Amino acid sequence: MTGPGRAERPGDPARLARVTLMRVAEPGDAVIGRLVDALGPEQALDQVSRGLPDRSVPAEPAGDGPDAGQAPARERRVAAWQARLATADAGRDLAAAGDLGVRLVVPGDPEWPTQLDDLGHQRPLGLWLHGDTDLRFSCLRSVAVVGSRAATPYGHHVAAELGADLSDAGWTVISGGAYGVDAAAHRGALTGSAPTVAVLACGTDVAYPAANHDLFTAIRGRGLIVSECPLGVRPTRPRFLIRNRVIAALSRGTVVVEAAVRSGALNTARHAVALHRRLGAVPGPVTSAGSAGCHRLIRDAEAVCVTSAAEVIELVGAIGADLAPQPAVPILPRDALDADTRDVLEAVPARAAAGPATIAVAAGVDLTRTLGCLGGLAAAGYVERVDRGWRLRRDAPR
Amino acid sequence: MTGPGRAERPGDPARLARVTLMRVAEPGDAVIGRLVDALGPEQALDQVSRGLPDRSVPAEPAGDGPDAGQAPARERRVAAWQARLATADAGRDLAAAGDLGVRLVVPGDPEWPTQLDDLGHQRPLGLWLHGDTDLRFSCLRSVAVVGSRAATPYGHHVAAELGADLSDAGWTVISGGAYGVDAAAHRGALTGSAPTVAVLACGTDVAYPAANHDLFTAIRGRGLIVSECPLGVRPTRPRFLIRNRVIAALSRGTVVVEAAVRSGALNTARHAVALHRRLGAVPGPVTSAGSAGCHRLIRDAEAVCVTSAAEVIELVGAIGADLAPQPAVPILPRDALDADTRDVLEAVPARAAAGPATIAVAAGVDLTRTLGCLGGLAAAGYVERVDRGWRLRRDAPR
Repeated sequence: MTGPGRAERPGDPARLARVTLMRVAEPGDAVIGRLVDALGPEQALDQVSRGLPDRSVPAEPAGDGPDAGQAPARERRVAAWQARLATADAGRDLAAAGDLGVRLVVPGDPEWPTQLDDLGHQRPLGLWLHGDTDLRFSCLRSVAVVGSRAATPYGHHVAAELGADLSDAGWTVISGGAYGVDAAAHRGALTGSAPTVAVLACGTDVAYPAANHDLFTAIRGRGLIVSECPLGVRPTRPRFLIRNRVIAALSRGTVVVEAAVRSGALNTARHAVALHRRLGAVPGPVTSAGSAGCHRLIRDAEAVCVTSAAEVIELVGAIGADLAPQPAVPILPRDALDADTRDVLEAVPARAAAGPATIAVAAGVDLTRTLGCLGGLAAAGYVERVDRGWRLRRDAPR
Repeated sequence: MTGPGRAERPGDPARLARVTLMRVAEPGDAVIGRLVDALGPEQALDQVSRGLPDRSVPAEPAGDGPDAGQAPARERRVAAWQARLATADAGRDLAAAGDLGVRLVVPGDPEWPTQLDDLGHQRPLGLWLHGDTDLRFSCLRSVAVVGSRAATPYGHHVAAELGADLSDAGWTVISGGAYGVDAAAHRGALTGSAPTVAVLACGTDVAYPAANHDLFTAIRGRGLIVSECPLGVRPTRPRFLIRNRVIAALSRGTVVVEAAVRSGALNTARHAVALHRRLGAVPGPVTSAGSAGCHRLIRDAEAVCVTSAAEVIELVGAIGADLAPQPAVPILPRDALDADTRDVLEAVPARAAAGPATIAVAAGVDLTRTLGCLGGLAAAGYVERVDRGWRLRRDAPR
């Protein structure tokens, strides 16, 4: 297959101009963003190719750096764009993407997640997607789960549990592609029923870090790999930071699982606050430097303390519709249950829910009695009814 | 020694009446409290001894229980008081206390902590004290450190560290005498410089739990054992709960180190909130049921998330005077320090502070240079100046 992918319309000059500009400028370049918003992508590209002749167009965002707006900076910047422009080839980029099964979505496309418009001039010019899931639909109910690359075993555990429980509850997990919390959250989400979305700071074809290659393959199968970087682009520290705004903007809210006081995850958290998204942080041992950033967010009342997927959903969900249950307290000790009820309890699965008939067969108790037992067990805090049947409550008394 | 202890004035009839009433009524009995506040202890005792003949005096606090104010409850209550009155002997109680070195303080005494007056009619009638420390003075700068009896190793560790660091900073720790967080907080505080105060739900001579006997002995040596229960009185569940109000009222604020969602420590926390004291809670692993009560307090914004003694002191201390330092971030890596500075850093003690001259000798660096190095190390977040010299910051970069 040498032609463009299914979503590509190489004949559309505005689309081609966007692809070229994505090659020319770094992601989140607000000058390019302002040009595109003001003139459209084709005229913006024309301006860039002619060296930004209109001096009234600023080449730097206002106040960005000590030499903002000064002539040498402007010239350096324009020169860098033009150097990249000399080798850019939108048709080749689209063809290569099509060969890999990678598609482009741009503002105005049905699949474009319009919440990214909150980024203003820093809105991505487009996103390259790898995976069959619909990006816009996936992100309607989504949570960014972020945290330290150097996560502790506790951070790995909590991220994976959160990912799994959010996905089980129908919430899409959005994260980066790093080791630690990012990878654990995706791995957890892959066990659930909702898609998981990895937003990379490099081309969708660049498996970085390489050890996550198999994870990226699995994410493509059950969700999406997303990037505003063209194919082949390597990650850099600035690209990680600017990428974080996309993670924050795509999701209804961000949860920081584990973060030291200086951590890239706190950068995502700041983006979330600036974008008026909800922010949660998971507490951890005060003896762990890995949780110090989370604790500071909670102390400063920037983040809500969240300890479970239910509390995360309460935070980001529709008000009232997604209230977290209060943690169960042991209303009735397990050995005070009668024999039938104990058998029914044994037959209730821990994660994937089962219907009453399945539970009745497994328990060897008749269906009517099983339904009665389930009601009692729910009232006592042992089990809960979910969309697909009954399952054990995570916080059930032992 | 058979006479009364140093602080006893057996000839004072009001004092004797209080001792008798402490034998007759349970701690925190608001009916007795109201009688004493209205009539003074002698007249209140007279009323009780005559079976509360004035029917206008309620025998139950308003709305206290389903049979509040009803005649049978009133009669049962008065009968119970009179049964105890028949065997009460204030002179004997005072003499026995004097024999043990236990003294009584009552409202109006110089040693009475007037913050207990916030308890209204539930203010203790008096307190039995064992230990040489002055109760009122000790509690001027005090923090209640409470939590689960069944503490995890994490809870033990945090309670002991908090106790030690608070005491090092000149703050008195107040707690109960239970296993777990109570005992760990006292043990930590005993390593510091400030007193530690144990408020018991039994007579000061009743070592409960017995395994804490040696701890109680150590607390008497460096602080105080306090109880409103007469000598020999055994602890009961209601006495633990009513005792908690004294812990909350004595201190400037309460910190919950570890508490499950149903824990007596949360009862102390509620008292602290009701008394307009500050409330902090220490976060912990969300995977630990032992921290679920703390997390709920933080989520419900009843408690401030606190992760160190400095943050506790910021919470309860004078506004502005006791701001917690922000956690240090590694401004300068250790191997970027010059040789003299590294030597000085090695010579700074971790806990007890040392003066610059001591540090200079230990480091083998001259005093002027040492002072310069200490200034630089402080700016870089490695060391801090305290009252008695310099010490390592707990959160110093490694």
